[in-house]
Amino acid sequence: MPRLVVHSYTISLDGYGAGPNQTRETPLGEGGEGLHEWLVGTRFFMQMTGKPGGTTGTDNDFAEQGMANVGAYIMGRNMFGPVRGPWPDDSWRGWWGKNPPYHTPTFVLTHHARAPQEMDGGTTFHFVTDGIEAALDRARAAAGDKDIRLLGGASTIRQYLEARLVDEMHIAVSPRLLGAGEPLFTGLDLPKLGYSTTTTIGGEKATYYVIARGAKRA
Amino acid sequence: MPRLVVHSYTISLDGYGAGPNQTRETPLGEGGEGLHEWLVGTRFFMQMTGKPGGTTGTDNDFAEQGMANVGAYIMGRNMFGPVRGPWPDDSWRGWWGKNPPYHTPTFVLTHHARAPQEMDGGTTFHFVTDGIEAALDRARAAAGDKDIRLLGGASTIRQYLEARLVDEMHIAVSPRLLGAGEPLFTGLDLPKLGYSTTTTIGGEKATYYVIARGAKRA
Repeated sequence: MPRLVVHSYTISLDGYGAGPNQTRETPLGEGGEGLHEWLVGTRFFMQMTGKPGGTTGTDNDFAEQGMANVGAYIMGRNMFGPVRGPWPDDSWRGWWGKNPPYHTPTFVLTHHARAPQEMDGGTTFHFVTDGIEAALDRARAAAGDKDIRLLGGASTIRQYLEARLVDEMHIAVSPRLLGAGEPLFTGLDLPKLGYSTTTTIGGEKATYYVIARGAKRA
Repeated sequence: MPRLVVHSYTISLDGYGAGPNQTRETPLGEGGEGLHEWLVGTRFFMQMTGKPGGTTGTDNDFAEQGMANVGAYIMGRNMFGPVRGPWPDDSWRGWWGKNPPYHTPTFVLTHHARAPQEMDGGTTFHFVTDGIEAALDRARAAAGDKDIRLLGGASTIRQYLEARLVDEMHIAVSPRLLGAGEPLFTGLDLPKLGYSTTTTIGGEKATYYVIARGAKRA
């Protein structure tokens, strides 16, 4: 069965996955863009955005790993866009332009139904209104023998962790302080849910941790 | 003027400086002991506890640095001991035996007055009931031209950070997850208070960060 994995999810040193006050101009909230400093200079990111060059090394290895062997993606509605409430129309098609970097079925959790949105390059956004388990079932059916990557945001990852549905989580800790925003860990008792840290890797501009689920506790 | 510094303060990957439910048997709360795995094997810690051997390297360097050039210490009452409320008597003299590792005047914040407690080896515990600024004034007078080290716990450090009185903070992030306990950062807007991360150092068993105060914001 395909594993549900979180890859390259970045938090600030003070624990936030995004800053406060997301808008169309600040998709990651105030100060949130700086969290991905480890990513934007890598060869992986340059290639993905059609540019030459970029760094190799631990940061780049970690970035590359995040999109390898992924058969389907899941994201929360606020990661898909800044629109809240019922969709006024189909004009918002994500932050990523005509050809998003996913190239597979991508399931967007929302309370508001919407027809699937086919994009260039193999990405189709499917809008799932019947909850996180339903989205996972549909992603499993789509992923074949590859992994399903859970993209974010923090609230979506937290819901899947609370339901013990995440198999493995790779996080990047940026040295930046945000001071406010969307916390990943606050109020979430990961040891009680069966999770522990298995690996620490120091990169050039962030530190990486692998958190995995062991035996379920009663 | 002596600087107020936090050194070697350790938090879990999920942000807790100690586990929940401190008792006489678990000074760092449930699961809290494991946070200091980076420290206990170092040559510095072995020497401090009168044992031979121990590791050298980044973890040891960081540990050694924490007690260098310190002229006075400040700690919160819960770090001094598990006793709550008025002191029933003078029998509790800290966790550290007859000869605590401080060897200088050490100021304990409490709401309950108590006579100074002179220990072997130069440590004297002074109990300060008139607040964090009063404790800092007294520590400044005692420290000469050395630094004042603010030991913890999390609540005490947070109070001094909120008052912008901490000059520099060295924290160690353990890869462990605690799930619950005393958070260091939650609800504390460090960028707004003028703090930012200046240095990241990957050690053998923890990752170290230096957080310093820049220009005060209005």
